[in-house]
Amino acid sequence: MSKIDKFNEERQSYNEILAKYANREQKRFFGLDAATYEDKGHLDKKTKELMGFVASLVLRCDDCILYHLIECHKAGINSDELAESVQIAMLVGGSITIPHIRRAMKVWDEELNQDV
Amino acid sequence: MSKIDKFNEERQSYNEILAKYANREQKRFFGLDAATYEDKGHLDKKTKELMGFVASLVLRCDDCILYHLIECHKAGINSDELAESVQIAMLVGGSITIPHIRRAMKVWDEELNQDV
Amino acid sequence: MSKIDKFNEERQSYNEILAKYANREQKRFFGLDAATYEDKGHLDKKTKELMGFVASLVLRCDDCILYHLIECHKAGINSDELAESVQIAMLVGGSITIPHIRRAMKVWDEELNQDV
Amino acid sequence: MSKIDKFNEERQSYNEILAKYANREQKRFFGLDAATYEDKGHLDKKTKELMGFVASLVLRCDDCILYHLIECHKAGINSDELAESVQIAMLVGGSITIPHIRRAMKVWDEELNQDV
Amino acid sequence: MSKIDKFNEERQSYNEILAKYANREQKRFFGLDAATYEDKGHLDKKTKELMGFVASLVLRCDDCILYHLIECHKAGINSDELAESVQIAMLVGGSITIPHIRRAMKVWDEELNQDV
Amino acid sequence: MSKIDKFNEERQSYNEILAKYANREQKRFFGLDAATYEDKGHLDKKTKELMGFVASLVLRCDDCILYHLIECHKAGINSDELAESVQIAMLVGGSITIPHIRRAMKVWDEELNQDV
Repeated sequence: MSKIDKFNEERQSYNEILAKYANREQKRFFGLDAATYEDKGHLDKKTKELMGFVASLVLRCDDCILYHLIECHKAGINSDELAESVQIAMLVGGSITIPHIRRAMKVWDEELNQDV
Repeated sequence: MSKIDKFNEERQSYNEILAKYANREQKRFFGLDAATYEDKGHLDKKTKELMGFVASLVLRCDDCILYHLIECHKAGINSDELAESVQIAMLVGGSITIPHIRRAMKVWDEELNQDV
Repeated sequence: MSKIDKFNEERQSYNEILAKYANREQKRFFGLDAATYEDKGHLDKKTKELMGFVASLVLRCDDCILYHLIECHKAGINSDELAESVQIAMLVGGSITIPHIRRAMKVWDEELNQDV
Repeated sequence: MSKIDKFNEERQSYNEILAKYANREQKRFFGLDAATYEDKGHLDKKTKELMGFVASLVLRCDDCILYHLIECHKAGINSDELAESVQIAMLVGGSITIPHIRRAMKVWDEELNQDV
Repeated sequence: MSKIDKFNEERQSYNEILAKYANREQKRFFGLDAATYEDKGHLDKKTKELMGFVASLVLRCDDCILYHLIECHKAGINSDELAESVQIAMLVGGSITIPHIRRAMKVWDEELNQDV
Repeated sequence: MSKIDKFNEERQSYNEILAKYANREQKRFFGLDAATYEDKGHLDKKTKELMGFVASLVLRCDDCILYHLIECHKAGINSDELAESVQIAMLVGGSITIPHIRRAMKVWDEELNQDV
């Protein structure tokens, strides 16, 4: 199974557990989180996902990074645009972000990149 | 072996290595850390563990989260109280905490929850 | 003017600006944030505020710390309980939290403490 | 003097001191930092500045936030686009970002906003 | 009054308040913190203070940075050694550390530097 | 295969992917990062690596911690010096660093320590 399929499957399974115990306010938070990246409003989907991706990189959360990388890919970013986004995260967040960038780029290289 | 048994076993093994190399000041730190959550003083054990749990969630350390979740459970919290604690961490710390919350709730669901 | 009066006045003024530019989702977030610490549900107000206080301390946000300290005071915590909460934040978050603790304790000492 | 003028003046003065003591590698870092947000390459200036702004918000550095807010303004973002960017930072980073957002929105309201 | 005199005076005043409310465990923490940088043991004072300085820079706490910068100066570091330490923090922690570095270097330039 | 061999092998493989997608500015960043810890300039290699190690510990990045621990070992630190460095990170960064310290000390104990 690909890393992305595994990630999505686990995420689905985790989210069922989250939903089982979430109170009303948590559910409102999840709804708000989903609404934040919807393809509507004033900034386009790609820009929103790039911001989510860079925020996740500088805060160094692998699951969040992978989630937004997949969404960036769906929104059509290419390797050159990804490189510039990663560059911003690396400059702002420093070398401490590099191990996370390594793991993200591996998934990009093996499963997402279609620039060939 | 359950996740909690595995966690406790590894923790025990790690702590032996820590103790082997710790200097006197490190040992004092470990003693102070243990004393902090003892069932004595002015706040009850449950409140102390809830604070340790929420602090661990917003700082996003899985091992610390699991440790305090287990202690919260021993102190008698139920799923409704856990949901409100998680809600605080999620609001203060943002969606970047969610992957950690997912992993915590999975252990709660599979091994700790006895609200049934 | 006391530090707390100044804080509250500035906060009010800032919140008017926030509200002026906030979109619908931001307003939902503010509502959710307020709901999180309401005196209702399964954990009491004091426990919720202590968790908010400790989370703010380990994340080192002076405004958030002061806000929750004031709310902890309203909820009736005393100096002994405060000391144990601060102790948890200090142990979890390390000496890097101490300057923030200093500023919080100064307000406690000068304006909130009524244990005398 | 406006907050922005004061900020720019102080920044200029600070940068002279930085340059006075910086070694060759630090100077290369500053050059790289500047190059990162230049209006060239594959992503447009506005997208790059929005990413820098959101990264600064979730890492909670007031000076960095203000710097990128000013640059976002120069790149032509309006209040609606700003609101969506702030929303992303608030959702990812949590309520701990709100005091920083307050300070940024005050400068936006008083000195940058020209949507009227 | 110089920035350093002001810092030391405030620190003294704050520490009196801290001591007034600290419980026994907090006092043990303060003792442990002080012991950590003492000129004894296996690493020399200068190396210990450089580590405290770099740790404070990457965690971005101005008071901690200034405290350790003063101690580094007392331990005899010069501007070239300071530049290399700052370089490490800047590379590890990224551009988000720069505003803190600016403030530290200003104090170095105006009050501590005696390399002339 | 030892943990260190596995780490080095993976790191090599990851770095090839990084290089494949890195733009010119990212490559300059990697070069700058490498230059930062070179055995030249005003502070010795051992001091630089100790600073990199402590910075990595307080920022809690396991890969960065292990990398600098290996480099510290190559630079000749012994268990007593390591204990004092770990002590600084633990005091500055708090108990949240302990799980990372555990994992580092396990590698030190099993693969690096030659103080016997």
